[in-house]
Amino acid sequence: MHSSDIWDDEDERRHKLMVDAVHDHGALASIELHHGGAHAMRRLSREHALSPSGLAGELPPPAGPLGTPKIMTVEDIDRVEQSFVDAAVRGRNAGYDIVDVLAGYGYLFAQFLSPFHNHRNDRYGGSLENRARFWVETLSRVRDAVGADCAIATRMSVQTQGPWGHTLEESAALIEMADPLVDLWDLNVGSVLDWGSDISPSRVIPEGRNMDLFTRIRGATEKPIVGVSRWTSPDSMAQAVRSGVIDIIGSARQSIADPFFPQKLYEGRTEDIRECMGINHCISSLDRGNMACAQNATAGEEYRRGWHPERFEPLEDKNASILVVGAGPAGLEAAIGLAKRGAEMVHLVDSADQVGGHLRPVVELPGLREWGRFIDHRLIQVDKLSNLQFIPATTLDADAILDYGASHVVIATGARWLRNGLTPSTHAALPGLDGLKWVFTPEQLLLGGERPTPGCRVSVYDAEGGYLGSSLAQLLANEGYNVSIVTPHASVAAEGDLTLDGPAVRSSLHASGVAMYRDVLLTEAGLGVLRGVGEFEVPFSLETDAAVLVTMRSPVDDLYQQLMADRQALDASGIDAVYCIGDALSPRPLAEVMFDGHRLAREFESPDPSSPLPYKRESLRLVD
Amino acid sequence: MHSSDIWDDEDERRHKLMVDAVHDHGALASIELHHGGAHAMRRLSREHALSPSGLAGELPPPAGPLGTPKIMTVEDIDRVEQSFVDAAVRGRNAGYDIVDVLAGYGYLFAQFLSPFHNHRNDRYGGSLENRARFWVETLSRVRDAVGADCAIATRMSVQTQGPWGHTLEESAALIEMADPLVDLWDLNVGSVLDWGSDISPSRVIPEGRNMDLFTRIRGATEKPIVGVSRWTSPDSMAQAVRSGVIDIIGSARQSIADPFFPQKLYEGRTEDIRECMGINHCISSLDRGNMACAQNATAGEEYRRGWHPERFEPLEDKNASILVVGAGPAGLEAAIGLAKRGAEMVHLVDSADQVGGHLRPVVELPGLREWGRFIDHRLIQVDKLSNLQFIPATTLDADAILDYGASHVVIATGARWLRNGLTPSTHAALPGLDGLKWVFTPEQLLLGGERPTPGCRVSVYDAEGGYLGSSLAQLLANEGYNVSIVTPHASVAAEGDLTLDGPAVRSSLHASGVAMYRDVLLTEAGLGVLRGVGEFEVPFSLETDAAVLVTMRSPVDDLYQQLMADRQALDASGIDAVYCIGDALSPRPLAEVMFDGHRLAREFESPDPSSPLPYKRESLRLVD
Repeated sequence: MHSSDIWDDEDERRHKLMVDAVHDHGALASIELHHGGAHAMRRLSREHALSPSGLAGELPPPAGPLGTPKIMTVEDIDRVEQSFVDAAVRGRNAGYDIVDVLAGYGYLFAQFLSPFHNHRNDRYGGSLENRARFWVETLSRVRDAVGADCAIATRMSVQTQGPWGHTLEESAALIEMADPLVDLWDLNVGSVLDWGSDISPSRVIPEGRNMDLFTRIRGATEKPIVGVSRWTSPDSMAQAVRSGVIDIIGSARQSIADPFFPQKLYEGRTEDIRECMGINHCISSLDRGNMACAQNATAGEEYRRGWHPERFEPLEDKNASILVVGAGPAGLEAAIGLAKRGAEMVHLVDSADQVGGHLRPVVELPGLREWGRFIDHRLIQVDKLSNLQFIPATTLDADAILDYGASHVVIATGARWLRNGLTPSTHAALPGLDGLKWVFTPEQLLLGGERPTPGCRVSVYDAEGGYLGSSLAQLLANEGYNVSIVTPHASVAAEGDLTLDGPAVRSSLHASGVAMYRDVLLTEAGLGVLRGVGEFEVPFSLETDAAVLVTMRSPVDDLYQQLMADRQALDASGIDAVYCIGDALSPRPLAEVMFDGHRLAREFESPDPSSPLPYKRESLRLVD
Repeated sequence: MHSSDIWDDEDERRHKLMVDAVHDHGALASIELHHGGAHAMRRLSREHALSPSGLAGELPPPAGPLGTPKIMTVEDIDRVEQSFVDAAVRGRNAGYDIVDVLAGYGYLFAQFLSPFHNHRNDRYGGSLENRARFWVETLSRVRDAVGADCAIATRMSVQTQGPWGHTLEESAALIEMADPLVDLWDLNVGSVLDWGSDISPSRVIPEGRNMDLFTRIRGATEKPIVGVSRWTSPDSMAQAVRSGVIDIIGSARQSIADPFFPQKLYEGRTEDIRECMGINHCISSLDRGNMACAQNATAGEEYRRGWHPERFEPLEDKNASILVVGAGPAGLEAAIGLAKRGAEMVHLVDSADQVGGHLRPVVELPGLREWGRFIDHRLIQVDKLSNLQFIPATTLDADAILDYGASHVVIATGARWLRNGLTPSTHAALPGLDGLKWVFTPEQLLLGGERPTPGCRVSVYDAEGGYLGSSLAQLLANEGYNVSIVTPHASVAAEGDLTLDGPAVRSSLHASGVAMYRDVLLTEAGLGVLRGVGEFEVPFSLETDAAVLVTMRSPVDDLYQQLMADRQALDASGIDAVYCIGDALSPRPLAEVMFDGHRLAREFESPDPSSPLPYKRESLRLVD
């Protein structure tokens, strides 16, 4: 449902609207033509799937479809080739500058290219040349049809993690084979089953990881190569292009995090770039129905809420002097937004000596270094904004806030992890925790630096399922503890199945000797033991010295509650309004609390700034 | 994304279009007003969630959202109550006859009603009366606003499987409490975590299962009760109403399977009813993006493809004499559709002595009795259609088909399970299978009645993940074998996680002593052993006497291939066209192959009946 059709005149007209807008801004537009083959979900067509040899797709249920695809006849092949030509012609008519024939990710052409799917013994199977024939024929026909008007590209996954693709050596040979037919190569890695290799999370895959592979196929082509590799840093990108290994940077996520990345680069404003953190909130939120970004609150909201990623409407009340209490993600974002809107003065106060709030120590966890970009980007903005002052190492109580002299107060004091073992599944404290030698919250480990005796048994109880439980387990394993992780969920680090780092995180934990228990709900602790029930109510027990409780967060909103409890004092103070945002309002993932702060800044003069203004909503129509 | 908004004038206008159409056909329209509370996904609003006590929702990631909801203040409660009133007024203005305030399924009101979520100690928490206050106030305000114009209903889940809801006794007290405020009660069972209790699959929950519960709360109300309980049979429905326990039948899935159910009942044409099988393909297909039904090919296609569920356009070629080879789901559906369209004669030939194809023995598997409705309904239609003749126990070869005298031939010869252990994950035969005493395909067990020595060790290898592997494991366990089930998927009977029978099926297997191994990919068989790799490449081995291979199906299309291979003979035979449909074209789930047959019948005169005609597609627009 996330793709677009280009099947008829009406589709063509709609694409043209977008392409014209792209051209108005001086950019080129490329259309990627896709056929899923054995993996096609066929939701609306309700047709059978097509494949080279009638072998079912490797994507298991419930994600993949059940059933065996049809073996494509030579007539089927001709028909599909023609459908690519038809789509390419429509794309050309809509004004696209580049037509990209998708041959990667394990989809239809990749199924022909790979001996895993292609068991044919006609001229479309067997030798590499035969396996490539369908794709080469298609490229050739597309080139004949639109090659004079459009550049022809083809996206290929040069390597996959499993047996589903083709080898790097075969990829090089394929590139050589089709080189005369394309104007540029669009290269990546991965397949439907190892999508995380391509949409790589920073937690497990470094920027530029594909350069080694690209280096090894560079010789196969004289044409420009567009290469993706989680590019986010201008320096890495420049180095990659200067090295001659690739010619054009392919980077979708960096464009989500900062659509003005190219312009900032062009203008030499690299310090203003919001660098993608690679946390893949874009992917997990897309899976949940609406793409969002943890760096860029405006992503997806440009038209819906009328938010320009770089421009802020001036505040109506230029004399607003705003006190933001708490310099974590929500407070930082609100303060910056309000300062950019021209508030007379924004004071951002935190009890810590640095901005970043709970995210600051998280950055030190294994693999999470790049999450620090959230803080880094905003710190630069704080430094640049003369009307925004960060006041570190300062704890304000309610009286101090009342006396501060601010016209508006924003409370963004964050959240804390529960220490009583209450989970979303139980809503009750875990009894018997005092039977354990040590019980830690994440803050005790991260901020307090507390640890049990070196080498002892530590059990992380992850009843939340985000990044933190597995990160702490990895940290403690790295420090030499004998670590277990227990979760009531069906998989360890369950959210990682959406952010695509789940499999790699679990492999890493396993490799580090961390014992993993899934589907286990703890019911009590005893002397040196955690007890619970597993699947089918099977009793579970685990001997341990220490427990780390990653179960649920609770807002730290005492200040807000105190301020709101004494309306009289508030009225007397000259404060026009007090807002509570971020985790202090409702503890949520980074992208959501950052959004809270951003929205408040954007809608500061609305009748009720605590609630969002109406936004445009999608409306569904059926068209012929 | 599956719900509708009623927030502004434009929403109201759209609802009115639908309500007017409902009224045109003499029916009443009800609008169900919903707030998700702690479970709200907030995809587009991107607001924080609300809840009685700031306790996270019990739906785990990746299905549920991460984070802790906000504790609702008394002001929040008042605001939400008003939003229900606003929506009710808009619903009334749009012409709805009934306003239903959703208080079930574990959503916002249910969270207040349940001590699991409601830990408040103000007047909205504590005693049952306090927990009910928010809901009762809302009902009261909605009644005041629209009670003179609309009937007021409220949906309540009178029981849940876990600790998330309220007890049946509490439900009765709640009903008594709010009885003066409602005109009818809309009662069900279940919650977000045991959704399968409500959308109950026939495999695990019988029709009318809730009657016992309804009986126990009947005394609490004088108002009519709408009761759901997977109602499909007119007799059961009549009995439920005559008993006085419930007054109105609530039945969504039966309406999907046969939207003309009420009319057929009214006209005394009960034999024409397409009874819902309770296989929950509606749910699994909805999860995959487009709701479909395994009984009713027209479900969801009425507007999209212009298909009336009951009316068929007359065939242009009245002299068409059609031979359908194979009376399985696809062939049956095609033959009936073509006969209803008025073909001069449709011959439906099968080598078996009954219609139903592969589905016939499936009906004998544990829990799958109601799947037989697929066959039963169609058998009645076959009997009623004078221009459709079923010819049993007849095997036709290519020559016999050429000589048959048909103008059109439809090949629907089904599929067979592979015996070589090839899976979607490997695309290669499993080596060493001759080291086992017995290796069975599902057909050998189901059709051939083959079995290993009583009581021996049998391993079912389910690399498909549909209903069959787990059903066979259950059957063999019931017969006294020592059964294991091995699957490369993350859960046993993985598709059951979409059709909602997965948890109950796994519990049943566990209770029957079936050992379950998930995440295990078999790599070879040896003497009395299956070997493979588990998660993290951990070696796996399982001693066994017999293996049942549920790995992949392959089409049985020899007849079709033979006919198409000799175009000359075909031309000479007087046959205008030959079509291949259903599993013989591409083995797929029941709903999909049935759809194949139906579509062919509907589009028999199209330029290329093997491919679907264009259909209306959804178009997305953003509106203010």
